[in-house]
Amino acid sequence: MQQPLSGIRVVDLTRILSGPFCTMLLGDMGADVIKIEGPAEGDPIRKAGAGVNGFSWYFASFNRNKRSMALDLRSDAGKEVLLKLLQSADVLVENFRPGVLAEMGFGEERLKQINPRLVVASITGYGSSGPYAERPAFDFVIQAMSGFMSTNGAEDQPPLRCGPPITDLVAGLYAAYGVVNALRARDQSGRGQHVDSAMMNGMLSMFAYLTSDYLATGELPVRTGNDHPITSPYGLFNTSDGEIAVAPSTDDILRRLLGLLDLGHLMSDARFNTNKLRMLNRRELNLLLDERFSTDTQASWIQRLNEGGVPCGKVQNVGEALSDPQILHQQMVLEVEHPGRGAVRMVGFPVKLSASPCLVRYPAPEHGVHTQEILAELGLTSARDADVPENME
Amino acid sequence: MQQPLSGIRVVDLTRILSGPFCTMLLGDMGADVIKIEGPAEGDPIRKAGAGVNGFSWYFASFNRNKRSMALDLRSDAGKEVLLKLLQSADVLVENFRPGVLAEMGFGEERLKQINPRLVVASITGYGSSGPYAERPAFDFVIQAMSGFMSTNGAEDQPPLRCGPPITDLVAGLYAAYGVVNALRARDQSGRGQHVDSAMMNGMLSMFAYLTSDYLATGELPVRTGNDHPITSPYGLFNTSDGEIAVAPSTDDILRRLLGLLDLGHLMSDARFNTNKLRMLNRRELNLLLDERFSTDTQASWIQRLNEGGVPCGKVQNVGEALSDPQILHQQMVLEVEHPGRGAVRMVGFPVKLSASPCLVRYPAPEHGVHTQEILAELGLTSARDADVPENME
Repeated sequence: MQQPLSGIRVVDLTRILSGPFCTMLLGDMGADVIKIEGPAEGDPIRKAGAGVNGFSWYFASFNRNKRSMALDLRSDAGKEVLLKLLQSADVLVENFRPGVLAEMGFGEERLKQINPRLVVASITGYGSSGPYAERPAFDFVIQAMSGFMSTNGAEDQPPLRCGPPITDLVAGLYAAYGVVNALRARDQSGRGQHVDSAMMNGMLSMFAYLTSDYLATGELPVRTGNDHPITSPYGLFNTSDGEIAVAPSTDDILRRLLGLLDLGHLMSDARFNTNKLRMLNRRELNLLLDERFSTDTQASWIQRLNEGGVPCGKVQNVGEALSDPQILHQQMVLEVEHPGRGAVRMVGFPVKLSASPCLVRYPAPEHGVHTQEILAELGLTSARDADVPENME
Repeated sequence: MQQPLSGIRVVDLTRILSGPFCTMLLGDMGADVIKIEGPAEGDPIRKAGAGVNGFSWYFASFNRNKRSMALDLRSDAGKEVLLKLLQSADVLVENFRPGVLAEMGFGEERLKQINPRLVVASITGYGSSGPYAERPAFDFVIQAMSGFMSTNGAEDQPPLRCGPPITDLVAGLYAAYGVVNALRARDQSGRGQHVDSAMMNGMLSMFAYLTSDYLATGELPVRTGNDHPITSPYGLFNTSDGEIAVAPSTDDILRRLLGLLDLGHLMSDARFNTNKLRMLNRRELNLLLDERFSTDTQASWIQRLNEGGVPCGKVQNVGEALSDPQILHQQMVLEVEHPGRGAVRMVGFPVKLSASPCLVRYPAPEHGVHTQEILAELGLTSARDADVPENME
């Protein structure tokens, strides 16, 4: 079976993270992604993050399945090549600030004239319109503005950003979802449309009961660290040789947990026989649980609880997670050969399709390395035709 | 233009959060989502979260655009109805533990016989195969196991879960992305396939440079609270009436920031003229910035910095975010009338399509309210034909 996006050409004007993540997701599904980079300097991520022998593994891991074309989009010649590319493309993805693409001569109406079948996806901080549309965005600021930081942190501690730049990645994933949907709509209508994914909107959609509870009651969620705001017991407990994370999400699972701990009687204990009481007497309850957990090892409890149907695990660092037997079984760490750069290890495909799986068809490209190849595909066989900057020859 | 998933029928066997979020995203794009609930008790989320007049807004906000059918999947009659449903369906989404669907008589081979065009999506904690496949999962445990908690928290403080159950939502979004891709592959091949979205895989894909840097160097990321691990200045600064979040992501933006603060000379100050030095002398630099920021108000700085091209905002709580003028402009808070329950406010559509936008076609359904309607569509016009449990008549 062909990959889902085989035959789909994506012109990728994005840089840094949210956009390249989106186009990587599309490339993983089989799209032909043409990454446009400036002639002098490529995507800044080429120089960011840790590398091996001067080659950024950060860049490599977010730019697989792409071809790189160097193009000066401020020059008429460069714009002419972009025009030809867009005529042949199915999707354009950009993460400029709103208006920048129009300033370059590729506003909405012009794009429709160039190619009415083109799906145009914009990834922005706050959305393509509205009072903040012109604001520059960055993950940390969106974590702050979206309300995410206000829900993250320990009790009695200030709001906290989370380490991963999650607002970029969520926006990139939503953009990819929007693009594939717009391609499907185009299959029926014959026409492209605009897809708008905003980091702030995307992040706000990730709060589950924290937003719905606020809207229902007007009461703000409180930061509760590793405790759950409305469930007890829940959290980290101490075994004889390390902590375990335990989350009995229903009364049924709680009953199983207490049974495994030989504490079944607590379900009818007057201090603990409702969730409300267990919340109120959380410290006392946790002490009783810790006492039992400390009689055996982390590994043993993780096995016993999971076998008994109680969600349980340990706090793993990034290295432990990346070498976890389950993660390796799921092929979530790939080793990809990069010509001249050696093998790069990177995170694998987060969603698996059984018959037309994601593949690494290309490693992350060197800056501009496919320029001539793509010019030739456009029928611009010599450098003169395209008048691309000389240093790209 | 028709919605992208118009005419696509989704049979939804999921409950709680990750699965219902996935099927909501599909419904928002136009799919006909049939939510199957047990005859006695529906989705537990109906009783979870805060509500108004006993109606859970948590349930309402994750189950729009679905119809509810009550069906006892342990009974032969219920299985017979499910069989007929699957014959007419395009997509099946389930978030049982691996193997449960097969135990119910709907294993992979049987599903292929019933409907070779069916796309079957499974959302699991750890993936459908591998050493942890049988383990039950819960957001907190996946935050721990995936490495996420190890990257979240203040310096010198322990690993921290984040408030929103983000691992559920990321897995649901990846599943929706996988489903639409599989539908597209089916358009070409005529055949369905299995889509596997695991919470742990999805979360691990969200770490950006934190995973790639570790893989390149073997050095673990450290928790840095609201400071960026490799950039300075960055963080929360004190204005005359509140904090602002400032993230100058490049030297160019930093130059603009310092210019706006009248601190341009710091770029050539021997203490601060490289990022490395600025990291080393972060405290000193932050003090100098705070001194200038304290001369004006939060609102003024947010305006001045954004206008000057420096990403900047404030830490908003969930209530502030939900009433932010940009969020309102983006229609990220919807008010949806629910018959007999009044108007429910909920988070809107995180990705916008210009020509075939997401719509609320149905409010979240009452438990089992569409059972007869769907039976009739299947040609099972009377209750006797379907032999559904009596309390559903």
